[in-house]
Amino acid sequence: MVSGKWLKLVKSLQVKKYRQLHQSFLVEGAKSVLELMDSAYAIQAVFATETFLRQHIRTRPGISFEYHAATEEELARMGSFQTNNAAIAVAAMLPNAPLQVGPAGYALALDGIQDPGNVGTILRIADWYGITRVICSEDTADVYNPKVISASMGSFTRVRTYYCDLPGYLRTHRGTPCLGAFLEGDDVHRFAFPPAGILVMGNESKGIRPEVEPFVTHKVHIPRYGGAESLNVGIATAVILDNVRRVGG
Amino acid sequence: MVSGKWLKLVKSLQVKKYRQLHQSFLVEGAKSVLELMDSAYAIQAVFATETFLRQHIRTRPGISFEYHAATEEELARMGSFQTNNAAIAVAAMLPNAPLQVGPAGYALALDGIQDPGNVGTILRIADWYGITRVICSEDTADVYNPKVISASMGSFTRVRTYYCDLPGYLRTHRGTPCLGAFLEGDDVHRFAFPPAGILVMGNESKGIRPEVEPFVTHKVHIPRYGGAESLNVGIATAVILDNVRRVGG
Repeated sequence: MVSGKWLKLVKSLQVKKYRQLHQSFLVEGAKSVLELMDSAYAIQAVFATETFLRQHIRTRPGISFEYHAATEEELARMGSFQTNNAAIAVAAMLPNAPLQVGPAGYALALDGIQDPGNVGTILRIADWYGITRVICSEDTADVYNPKVISASMGSFTRVRTYYCDLPGYLRTHRGTPCLGAFLEGDDVHRFAFPPAGILVMGNESKGIRPEVEPFVTHKVHIPRYGGAESLNVGIATAVILDNVRRVGG
Repeated sequence: MVSGKWLKLVKSLQVKKYRQLHQSFLVEGAKSVLELMDSAYAIQAVFATETFLRQHIRTRPGISFEYHAATEEELARMGSFQTNNAAIAVAAMLPNAPLQVGPAGYALALDGIQDPGNVGTILRIADWYGITRVICSEDTADVYNPKVISASMGSFTRVRTYYCDLPGYLRTHRGTPCLGAFLEGDDVHRFAFPPAGILVMGNESKGIRPEVEPFVTHKVHIPRYGGAESLNVGIATAVILDNVRRVGG
Protein backbone atom coordinates (compact mmCIF):
# COMPACT_ATOMS: atom_id res chain seq x y z
CA MET A 1 0.00 0.00 0.00
CA VAL A 2 1.18 3.49 -0.84
CA SER A 3 1.43 5.88 2.10
CA GLY A 4 -0.85 8.89 2.28
CA LYS A 5 2.17 11.19 2.13
CA TRP A 6 3.34 9.77 -1.19
CA LEU A 7 -0.19 9.59 -2.59
CA LYS A 8 -0.61 13.29 -1.91
CA LEU A 9 2.82 14.29 -3.23
CA VAL A 10 2.45 12.31 -6.46
CA LYS A 11 -1.02 13.66 -7.10
CA SER A 12 0.20 17.21 -6.55
CA LEU A 13 2.79 16.80 -9.35
CA GLN A 14 0.02 16.95 -11.92
CA VAL A 15 0.01 20.68 -11.19
CA LYS A 16 2.83 22.90 -12.47
CA LYS A 17 3.06 24.95 -9.26
CA TYR A 18 3.84 21.82 -7.23
CA ARG A 19 6.23 20.45 -9.85
CA GLN A 20 8.19 23.66 -9.55
CA LEU A 21 8.01 23.62 -5.76
CA HIS A 22 9.36 20.05 -5.59
CA GLN A 23 11.45 20.26 -8.80
CA SER A 24 9.98 16.84 -9.58
CA PHE A 25 7.68 15.37 -12.21
CA LEU A 26 5.71 12.23 -12.99
CA VAL A 27 6.41 9.56 -15.54
CA GLU A 28 3.54 7.13 -16.09
CA GLY A 29 3.11 3.80 -17.83
CA ALA A 30 5.46 0.90 -18.46
CA LYS A 31 7.19 2.15 -21.60
CA SER A 32 7.94 5.64 -20.29
CA VAL A 33 9.13 4.43 -16.86
CA LEU A 34 11.45 1.89 -18.53
CA GLU A 35 12.90 4.59 -20.78
CA LEU A 36 13.32 6.84 -17.74
CA MET A 37 15.30 4.12 -15.94
CA ASP A 38 17.68 3.96 -18.91
CA SER A 39 18.14 7.74 -19.00
CA ALA A 40 20.23 10.33 -17.18
CA TYR A 41 17.27 11.51 -15.10
CA ALA A 42 17.53 10.96 -11.33
CA ILE A 43 14.58 8.88 -10.19
CA GLN A 44 13.27 9.58 -6.71
CA ALA A 45 10.63 6.88 -6.36
CA VAL A 46 8.76 4.27 -8.35
CA PHE A 47 5.28 2.95 -7.58
CA ALA A 48 4.46 -0.17 -9.50
CA THR A 49 2.44 -3.35 -9.55
CA GLU A 50 4.07 -6.46 -8.11
CA THR A 51 4.40 -7.81 -11.65
CA PHE A 52 6.30 -4.74 -12.84
CA LEU A 53 8.53 -4.71 -9.75
CA ARG A 54 9.37 -8.38 -10.26
CA GLN A 55 10.08 -8.05 -13.97
CA HIS A 56 11.94 -4.75 -14.05
CA ILE A 57 13.04 -3.52 -10.63
CA ARG A 58 13.75 -6.10 -7.94
CA THR A 59 16.36 -7.89 -10.02
CA ARG A 60 17.91 -4.75 -11.51
CA PRO A 61 21.41 -3.99 -10.22
CA GLY A 62 22.30 -0.59 -8.82
CA ILE A 63 18.81 0.71 -8.03
CA SER A 64 19.24 3.99 -6.17
CA PHE A 65 15.62 4.98 -5.63
CA GLU A 66 12.90 3.79 -3.32
CA TYR A 67 10.10 1.71 -4.76
CA HIS A 68 6.74 0.60 -3.49
CA ALA A 69 4.18 -1.94 -4.59
CA ALA A 70 0.91 -0.35 -5.67
CA THR A 71 -2.35 -1.73 -6.98
CA GLU A 72 -3.71 -0.65 -10.37
CA GLU A 73 -6.38 1.30 -8.47
CA GLU A 74 -3.74 3.18 -6.49
CA LEU A 75 -1.79 3.96 -9.67
CA ALA A 76 -4.93 5.30 -11.33
CA ARG A 77 -5.71 7.37 -8.22
CA MET A 78 -2.19 8.82 -7.98
CA GLY A 79 -1.54 9.58 -11.61
CA SER A 80 -3.16 11.29 -14.54
CA PHE A 81 -3.93 8.13 -16.54
CA GLN A 82 -7.45 6.75 -16.33
CA THR A 83 -5.95 3.28 -16.04
CA ASN A 84 -2.38 2.25 -15.34
CA ASN A 85 -1.51 -1.40 -14.97
CA ALA A 86 2.23 -0.91 -14.56
CA ALA A 87 4.08 1.96 -12.93
CA ILE A 88 4.50 5.62 -11.99
CA ALA A 89 7.88 7.20 -11.32
CA VAL A 90 8.79 10.46 -9.65
CA ALA A 91 11.93 11.99 -11.12
CA ALA A 92 13.93 15.16 -10.61
CA MET A 93 13.48 17.92 -13.18
CA LEU A 94 16.60 18.98 -15.03
CA PRO A 95 17.68 22.61 -14.64
CA ASN A 96 16.35 24.92 -17.35
CA ALA A 97 19.82 25.46 -18.78
CA PRO A 98 20.37 27.41 -22.01
CA LEU A 99 20.79 25.28 -25.12
CA GLN A 100 23.23 26.64 -27.62
CA VAL A 101 22.64 26.14 -31.29
CA GLY A 102 25.91 25.89 -33.08
CA PRO A 103 26.97 25.69 -36.71
CA ALA A 104 26.11 21.97 -36.92
CA GLY A 105 22.70 20.40 -36.94
CA TYR A 106 19.15 21.56 -36.42
CA ALA A 107 17.19 22.70 -33.39
CA LEU A 108 13.47 23.28 -33.04
CA ALA A 109 11.88 26.38 -31.53
CA LEU A 110 8.27 26.27 -30.33
CA ASP A 111 6.49 29.62 -30.35
CA GLY A 112 3.50 29.26 -28.04
CA ILE A 113 2.45 25.67 -28.68
CA GLN A 114 -0.39 25.37 -26.17
CA ASP A 115 -1.56 21.80 -26.32
CA PRO A 116 0.50 19.38 -24.18
CA GLY A 117 -0.31 16.51 -26.58
CA ASN A 118 1.19 18.51 -29.45
CA VAL A 119 4.35 19.33 -27.48
CA GLY A 120 4.80 15.67 -26.53
CA THR A 121 4.22 14.56 -30.13
CA ILE A 122 6.76 17.14 -31.34
CA LEU A 123 9.38 15.82 -28.89
CA ARG A 124 8.81 12.32 -30.29
CA ILE A 125 9.14 13.60 -33.86
CA ALA A 126 12.27 15.62 -32.99
CA ASP A 127 13.76 12.46 -31.48
CA TRP A 128 12.89 10.41 -34.60
CA TYR A 129 14.61 12.98 -36.80
CA GLY A 130 17.66 13.19 -34.55
CA ILE A 131 16.97 16.64 -33.13
CA THR A 132 17.89 16.87 -29.48
CA ARG A 133 17.41 20.58 -28.74
CA VAL A 134 13.99 22.21 -28.48
CA ILE A 135 13.80 25.89 -27.50
CA CYS A 136 10.38 26.79 -26.08
CA SER A 137 8.75 30.17 -25.61
CA GLU A 138 7.68 30.66 -22.01
CA ASP A 139 4.00 30.12 -22.88
CA THR A 140 4.60 26.78 -24.60
CA ALA A 141 3.05 23.89 -22.64
CA ASP A 142 5.34 22.72 -19.82
CA VAL A 143 7.49 19.78 -20.87
CA TYR A 144 6.94 18.24 -17.41
CA ASN A 145 3.15 18.24 -17.80
CA PRO A 146 2.15 14.54 -17.53
CA LYS A 147 0.39 14.77 -20.93
CA VAL A 148 3.59 15.99 -22.60
CA ILE A 149 5.65 13.25 -20.97
CA SER A 150 3.10 10.64 -21.98
CA ALA A 151 2.69 11.82 -25.59
CA SER A 152 6.46 11.94 -26.05
CA MET A 153 6.54 8.12 -25.68
CA GLY A 154 9.88 8.22 -23.86
CA SER A 155 11.48 10.78 -26.17
CA PHE A 156 11.61 13.34 -23.32
CA THR A 157 14.64 11.36 -22.10
CA ARG A 158 16.60 12.08 -25.29
CA VAL A 159 15.45 15.56 -26.27
CA ARG A 160 16.45 18.59 -24.18
CA THR A 161 14.19 21.62 -23.80
CA TYR A 162 14.96 25.18 -22.81
CA TYR A 163 12.19 27.63 -21.86
CA CYS A 164 13.06 31.25 -22.51
CA ASP A 165 12.06 34.53 -24.07
CA LEU A 166 12.07 33.27 -27.66
CA PRO A 167 12.61 36.57 -29.52
CA GLY A 168 15.49 37.33 -27.14
CA TYR A 169 16.98 33.90 -27.78
CA LEU A 170 16.71 34.25 -31.54
CA ARG A 171 18.28 37.71 -31.34
CA THR A 172 21.43 36.14 -29.89
CA HIS A 173 21.45 33.55 -32.71
CA ARG A 174 21.27 35.95 -35.63
CA GLY A 175 24.06 34.15 -37.45
CA THR A 176 22.10 30.88 -37.57
CA PRO A 177 19.59 30.25 -40.38
CA CYS A 178 16.09 30.41 -38.91
CA LEU A 179 13.24 28.66 -40.74
CA GLY A 180 9.53 29.14 -40.18
CA ALA A 181 6.34 27.99 -41.89
CA PHE A 182 4.40 30.77 -43.65
CA LEU A 183 1.81 30.52 -46.42
CA GLU A 184 3.94 32.68 -48.71
CA GLY A 185 7.09 30.68 -47.99
CA ASP A 186 9.13 28.54 -50.37
CA ASP A 187 7.82 25.06 -51.23
CA VAL A 188 9.62 22.56 -48.94
CA HIS A 189 9.81 20.15 -51.90
CA ARG A 190 12.04 22.58 -53.78
CA PHE A 191 13.78 24.48 -51.02
CA ALA A 192 17.52 24.03 -50.53
CA PHE A 193 17.58 23.62 -46.75
CA PRO A 194 20.77 24.90 -45.12
CA PRO A 195 22.88 22.22 -43.41
CA ALA A 196 22.08 23.68 -39.98
CA GLY A 197 19.45 25.94 -38.50
CA ILE A 198 16.57 26.56 -36.16
CA LEU A 199 13.09 25.52 -37.30
CA VAL A 200 10.38 27.63 -35.60
CA MET A 201 6.90 26.11 -35.27
CA GLY A 202 4.11 28.49 -34.30
CA ASN A 203 0.99 28.42 -32.16
CA GLU A 204 -1.83 26.04 -33.21
CA SER A 205 -4.18 28.79 -34.34
CA LYS A 206 -2.12 31.97 -34.59
CA GLY A 207 1.09 30.60 -36.10
CA ILE A 208 4.38 32.37 -35.56
CA ARG A 209 4.06 35.61 -33.57
CA PRO A 210 4.84 39.03 -35.03
CA GLU A 211 7.63 39.39 -32.43
CA VAL A 212 9.29 36.23 -33.71
CA GLU A 213 8.70 36.63 -37.46
CA PRO A 214 11.52 39.20 -38.01
CA PHE A 215 14.07 36.59 -36.91
CA VAL A 216 12.90 34.07 -39.52
CA THR A 217 15.45 34.17 -42.32
CA HIS A 218 13.85 31.45 -44.50
CA LYS A 219 10.09 31.15 -44.91
CA VAL A 220 8.86 27.78 -46.14
CA HIS A 221 5.50 26.10 -46.73
CA ILE A 222 4.23 22.56 -47.21
CA PRO A 223 2.45 22.32 -50.57
CA ARG A 224 -1.22 21.40 -50.42
CA TYR A 225 -2.92 19.17 -52.97
CA GLY A 226 -6.51 19.08 -51.66
CA GLY A 227 -9.13 20.87 -49.58
CA ALA A 228 -7.96 20.81 -45.94
CA GLU A 229 -7.25 24.30 -44.62
CA SER A 230 -4.28 23.35 -42.50
CA LEU A 231 -2.24 20.57 -40.99
CA ASN A 232 -1.85 19.97 -37.26
CA VAL A 233 1.40 21.51 -35.93
CA GLY A 234 2.88 18.09 -35.06
CA ILE A 235 2.17 16.80 -38.56
CA ALA A 236 3.69 19.94 -40.10
CA THR A 237 6.81 19.58 -37.94
CA ALA A 238 7.29 16.00 -39.11
CA VAL A 239 6.79 16.81 -42.78
CA ILE A 240 9.22 19.75 -42.70
CA LEU A 241 11.88 17.78 -40.78
CA ASP A 242 11.50 14.91 -43.23
CA ASN A 243 12.21 17.32 -46.06
CA VAL A 244 15.18 18.79 -44.17
CA ARG A 245 16.67 15.34 -43.67
CA ARG A 246 15.88 14.23 -47.20
CA VAL A 247 18.09 16.91 -48.66
CA GLY A 248 20.80 16.27 -46.11
CA GLY A 249 20.04 19.14 -43.69
CA MET B 1 -35.01 25.52 -25.52
CA VAL B 2 -34.34 22.16 -27.10
CA SER B 3 -37.13 19.60 -26.74
CA GLY B 4 -36.55 16.46 -24.70
CA LYS B 5 -37.10 14.34 -27.80
CA TRP B 6 -34.23 16.04 -29.67
CA LEU B 7 -31.98 16.10 -26.62
CA LYS B 8 -32.38 12.37 -26.27
CA LEU B 9 -31.92 11.63 -29.98
CA VAL B 10 -28.82 13.80 -30.33
CA LYS B 11 -27.22 12.32 -27.25
CA SER B 12 -27.90 8.79 -28.51
CA LEU B 13 -25.91 9.51 -31.69
CA GLN B 14 -22.69 9.39 -29.70
CA VAL B 15 -23.22 5.62 -29.74
CA LYS B 16 -22.62 3.64 -32.94
CA LYS B 17 -25.68 1.41 -32.46
CA TYR B 18 -27.99 4.45 -32.48
CA ARG B 19 -26.14 6.09 -35.37
CA GLN B 20 -26.80 2.96 -37.39
CA LEU B 21 -30.42 2.75 -36.24
CA HIS B 22 -31.11 6.36 -37.26
CA GLN B 23 -28.55 6.46 -40.11
CA SER B 24 -27.56 9.85 -38.69
CA PHE B 25 -24.50 11.37 -37.05
CA LEU B 26 -23.39 14.45 -35.15
CA VAL B 27 -21.24 17.32 -36.32
CA GLU B 28 -20.07 19.63 -33.54
CA GLY B 29 -18.45 23.04 -33.37
CA ALA B 30 -18.60 26.10 -35.61
CA LYS B 31 -15.96 25.13 -38.18
CA SER B 32 -17.27 21.60 -38.76
CA VAL B 33 -20.93 22.65 -38.95
CA LEU B 34 -20.06 25.40 -41.47
CA GLU B 35 -18.13 22.92 -43.63
CA LEU B 36 -21.07 20.51 -43.38
CA MET B 37 -23.47 23.20 -44.65
CA ASP B 38 -21.23 23.66 -47.70
CA SER B 39 -21.08 19.92 -48.41
CA ALA B 40 -23.25 17.33 -50.12
CA TYR B 41 -24.43 15.88 -46.80
CA ALA B 42 -28.15 16.20 -46.04
CA ILE B 43 -28.58 18.05 -42.76
CA GLN B 44 -31.57 17.05 -40.62
CA ALA B 45 -31.33 19.60 -37.84
CA VAL B 46 -29.03 22.24 -36.38
CA PHE B 47 -28.93 23.35 -32.74
CA ALA B 48 -27.01 26.54 -32.25
CA THR B 49 -26.60 29.60 -30.11
CA GLU B 50 -28.56 32.69 -31.11
CA THR B 51 -25.30 34.28 -32.26
CA PHE B 52 -24.49 31.39 -34.59
CA LEU B 53 -28.07 31.26 -35.94
CA ARG B 54 -27.99 34.98 -36.66
CA GLN B 55 -24.57 34.94 -38.32
CA HIS B 56 -24.81 31.75 -40.33
CA ILE B 57 -28.33 30.36 -40.60
CA ARG B 58 -31.26 32.78 -40.43
CA THR B 59 -30.01 34.82 -43.37
CA ARG B 60 -28.84 31.87 -45.45
CA PRO B 61 -31.00 31.22 -48.52
CA GLY B 62 -32.41 27.78 -49.26
CA ILE B 63 -32.17 26.26 -45.78
CA SER B 64 -33.91 22.87 -45.91
CA PHE B 65 -33.42 21.69 -42.34
CA GLU B 66 -34.98 22.61 -39.05
CA TYR B 67 -32.98 24.62 -36.58
CA HIS B 68 -33.38 25.48 -32.93
CA ALA B 69 -31.76 27.95 -30.60
CA ALA B 70 -29.79 26.30 -27.82
CA THR B 71 -27.74 27.59 -24.93
CA GLU B 72 -24.08 26.66 -24.55
CA GLU B 73 -25.10 24.46 -21.62
CA GLU B 74 -27.62 22.59 -23.78
CA LEU B 75 -25.02 22.11 -26.54
CA ALA B 76 -22.54 20.72 -24.02
CA ARG B 77 -25.22 18.43 -22.61
CA MET B 78 -26.32 17.14 -26.05
CA GLY B 79 -22.94 16.64 -27.66
CA SER B 80 -19.60 15.04 -26.96
CA PHE B 81 -17.64 18.28 -26.51
CA GLN B 82 -16.99 19.49 -22.99
CA THR B 83 -17.83 22.99 -24.12
CA ASN B 84 -19.48 24.15 -27.31
CA ASN B 85 -20.25 27.82 -27.84
CA ALA B 86 -21.60 27.48 -31.36
CA ALA B 87 -23.52 24.60 -32.92
CA ILE B 88 -24.35 20.92 -33.30
CA ALA B 89 -25.80 19.48 -36.50
CA VAL B 90 -27.51 16.15 -37.13
CA ALA B 91 -26.84 14.87 -40.66
CA ALA B 92 -27.70 11.77 -42.64
CA MET B 93 -24.96 9.17 -43.06
CA LEU B 94 -23.94 8.38 -46.62
CA PRO B 95 -24.43 4.79 -47.78
CA ASN B 96 -21.34 2.59 -47.34
CA ALA B 97 -20.85 2.32 -51.10
CA PRO B 98 -17.78 0.60 -52.60
CA LEU B 99 -14.99 2.95 -53.67
CA GLN B 100 -13.16 1.88 -56.76
CA VAL B 101 -9.48 2.58 -57.13
CA GLY B 102 -8.62 3.12 -60.74
CA PRO B 103 -5.41 3.61 -62.67
CA ALA B 104 -5.16 7.28 -61.64
CA GLY B 105 -4.34 8.66 -58.24
CA TYR B 106 -3.85 7.31 -54.78
CA ALA B 107 -6.20 5.87 -52.18
CA LEU B 108 -5.53 5.09 -48.52
CA ALA B 109 -6.43 1.83 -46.81
CA LEU B 110 -6.66 1.68 -43.01
CA ASP B 111 -6.00 -1.75 -41.52
CA GLY B 112 -7.47 -1.69 -38.03
CA ILE B 113 -6.75 1.89 -36.93
CA GLN B 114 -8.45 1.88 -33.53
CA ASP B 115 -8.16 5.40 -32.22
CA PRO B 116 -10.89 7.79 -33.48
CA GLY B 117 -8.50 10.75 -33.15
CA ASN B 118 -6.03 9.01 -35.45
CA VAL B 119 -8.71 8.22 -38.05
CA GLY B 120 -9.92 11.84 -38.00
CA THR B 121 -6.35 13.14 -38.31
CA ILE B 122 -5.73 10.77 -41.22
CA LEU B 123 -8.85 12.07 -43.04
CA ARG B 124 -7.50 15.62 -42.63
CA ILE B 125 -4.09 14.58 -43.96
CA ALA B 126 -5.65 12.68 -46.87
CA ASP B 127 -7.65 15.80 -47.70
CA TRP B 128 -4.52 17.99 -47.56
CA TYR B 129 -2.72 15.66 -49.95
CA GLY B 130 -5.68 15.45 -52.31
CA ILE B 131 -6.69 11.89 -51.51
CA THR B 132 -10.45 11.47 -51.47
CA ARG B 133 -10.84 7.71 -51.05
CA VAL B 134 -10.13 5.89 -47.78
CA ILE B 135 -10.83 2.16 -47.60
CA CYS B 136 -11.27 0.99 -43.98
CA SER B 137 -11.14 -2.48 -42.50
CA GLU B 138 -14.30 -3.27 -40.58
CA ASP B 139 -12.53 -2.85 -37.22
CA THR B 140 -11.20 0.62 -38.02
CA ALA B 141 -12.83 3.32 -35.83
CA ASP B 142 -16.20 4.40 -37.22
CA VAL B 143 -15.90 7.50 -39.40
CA TYR B 144 -19.16 8.81 -37.87
CA ASN B 145 -17.80 8.64 -34.32
CA PRO B 146 -17.97 12.27 -33.04
CA LYS B 147 -14.22 12.15 -32.24
CA VAL B 148 -13.39 11.19 -35.84
CA ILE B 149 -15.63 13.93 -37.23
CA SER B 150 -14.12 16.49 -34.87
CA ALA B 151 -10.47 15.51 -35.48
CA SER B 152 -11.03 15.60 -39.25
CA MET B 153 -11.59 19.39 -38.96
CA GLY B 154 -14.20 19.35 -41.73
CA SER B 155 -12.27 17.02 -44.04
CA PHE B 156 -14.92 14.29 -43.59
CA THR B 157 -16.99 16.34 -46.07
CA ARG B 158 -14.39 15.92 -48.83
CA VAL B 159 -12.97 12.44 -48.20
CA ARG B 160 -15.11 9.33 -48.81
CA THR B 161 -14.72 6.19 -46.72
CA TYR B 162 -15.72 2.60 -47.45
CA TYR B 163 -15.77 -0.03 -44.70
CA CYS B 164 -15.19 -3.55 -45.93
CA ASP B 165 -13.28 -6.78 -45.57
CA LEU B 166 -9.87 -5.29 -46.42
CA PRO B 167 -8.05 -8.43 -47.63
CA GLY B 168 -11.06 -9.21 -49.85
CA TYR B 169 -11.00 -5.67 -51.23
CA LEU B 170 -7.28 -5.79 -51.97
CA ARG B 171 -7.72 -9.17 -53.65
CA THR B 172 -10.03 -7.55 -56.21
CA HIS B 173 -7.44 -4.78 -56.79
CA ARG B 174 -4.46 -6.99 -57.53
CA GLY B 175 -3.53 -4.95 -60.57
CA THR B 176 -3.04 -1.77 -58.51
CA PRO B 177 0.30 -1.08 -56.77
CA CYS B 178 -0.20 -1.52 -53.03
CA LEU B 179 2.22 0.21 -50.65
CA GLY B 180 2.67 -0.49 -46.95
CA ALA B 181 5.09 0.62 -44.24
CA PHE B 182 7.42 -2.12 -43.01
CA LEU B 183 10.77 -1.84 -41.21
CA GLU B 184 12.50 -3.73 -43.99
CA GLY B 185 10.89 -1.62 -46.74
CA ASP B 186 12.57 0.76 -49.16
CA ASP B 187 13.56 4.22 -47.90
CA VAL B 188 10.75 6.66 -48.89
CA HIS B 189 13.42 9.26 -49.67
CA ARG B 190 14.78 7.08 -52.47
CA PHE B 191 11.77 5.08 -53.55
CA ALA B 192 10.30 5.68 -57.00
CA PHE B 193 6.62 5.84 -56.06
CA PRO B 194 4.28 4.60 -58.79
CA PRO B 195 1.95 7.28 -60.21
CA ALA B 196 -1.09 5.57 -58.65
CA GLY B 197 -1.71 3.08 -55.89
CA ILE B 198 -3.17 2.17 -52.53
CA LEU B 199 -1.21 3.12 -49.41
CA VAL B 200 -2.03 0.77 -46.50
CA MET B 201 -1.54 2.09 -42.96
CA GLY B 202 -1.62 -0.47 -40.16
CA ASN B 203 -2.88 -0.69 -36.59
CA GLU B 204 -1.26 1.59 -33.98
CA SER B 205 0.59 -1.19 -32.19
CA LYS B 206 0.45 -4.24 -34.45
CA GLY B 207 1.00 -2.62 -37.84
CA ILE B 208 -0.29 -4.25 -41.01
CA ARG B 209 -1.96 -7.62 -40.38
CA PRO B 210 -0.59 -10.91 -41.73
CA GLU B 211 -3.80 -11.30 -43.78
CA VAL B 212 -3.15 -7.96 -45.50
CA GLU B 213 0.64 -8.15 -45.93
CA PRO B 214 0.56 -10.56 -48.94
CA PHE B 215 -1.29 -7.90 -50.94
CA VAL B 216 1.40 -5.28 -50.33
CA THR B 217 3.44 -5.08 -53.52
CA HIS B 218 5.82 -2.29 -52.38
CA LYS B 219 7.18 -2.15 -48.83
CA VAL B 220 8.50 1.23 -47.76
CA HIS B 221 9.87 2.78 -44.57
CA ILE B 222 10.50 6.28 -43.23
CA PRO B 223 14.19 6.65 -42.37
CA ARG B 224 14.96 7.36 -38.74
CA TYR B 225 17.75 9.67 -37.61
CA GLY B 226 17.41 9.51 -33.82
CA GLY B 227 16.19 7.46 -30.88
CA ALA B 228 12.37 7.33 -31.06
CA GLU B 229 11.09 3.81 -31.62
CA SER B 230 8.22 4.76 -33.88
CA LEU B 231 6.08 7.54 -35.27
CA ASN B 232 2.35 7.90 -34.64
CA VAL B 233 0.31 6.46 -37.53
CA GLY B 234 -1.08 9.88 -38.50
CA ILE B 235 2.42 11.35 -38.65
CA ALA B 236 3.65 8.40 -40.70
CA THR B 237 0.74 8.77 -43.13
CA ALA B 238 1.57 12.44 -43.67
CA VAL B 239 5.29 11.84 -44.19
CA ILE B 240 4.71 9.02 -46.70
CA LEU B 241 2.07 11.00 -48.63
CA ASP B 242 4.37 14.01 -48.71
CA ASN B 243 7.04 11.82 -50.29
CA VAL B 244 4.51 10.37 -52.75
CA ARG B 245 3.48 13.86 -53.86
CA ARG B 246 7.01 15.16 -53.93
CA VAL B 247 7.98 12.69 -56.61
CA GLY B 248 4.79 13.32 -58.54
CA GLY B 249 2.78 10.27 -57.41
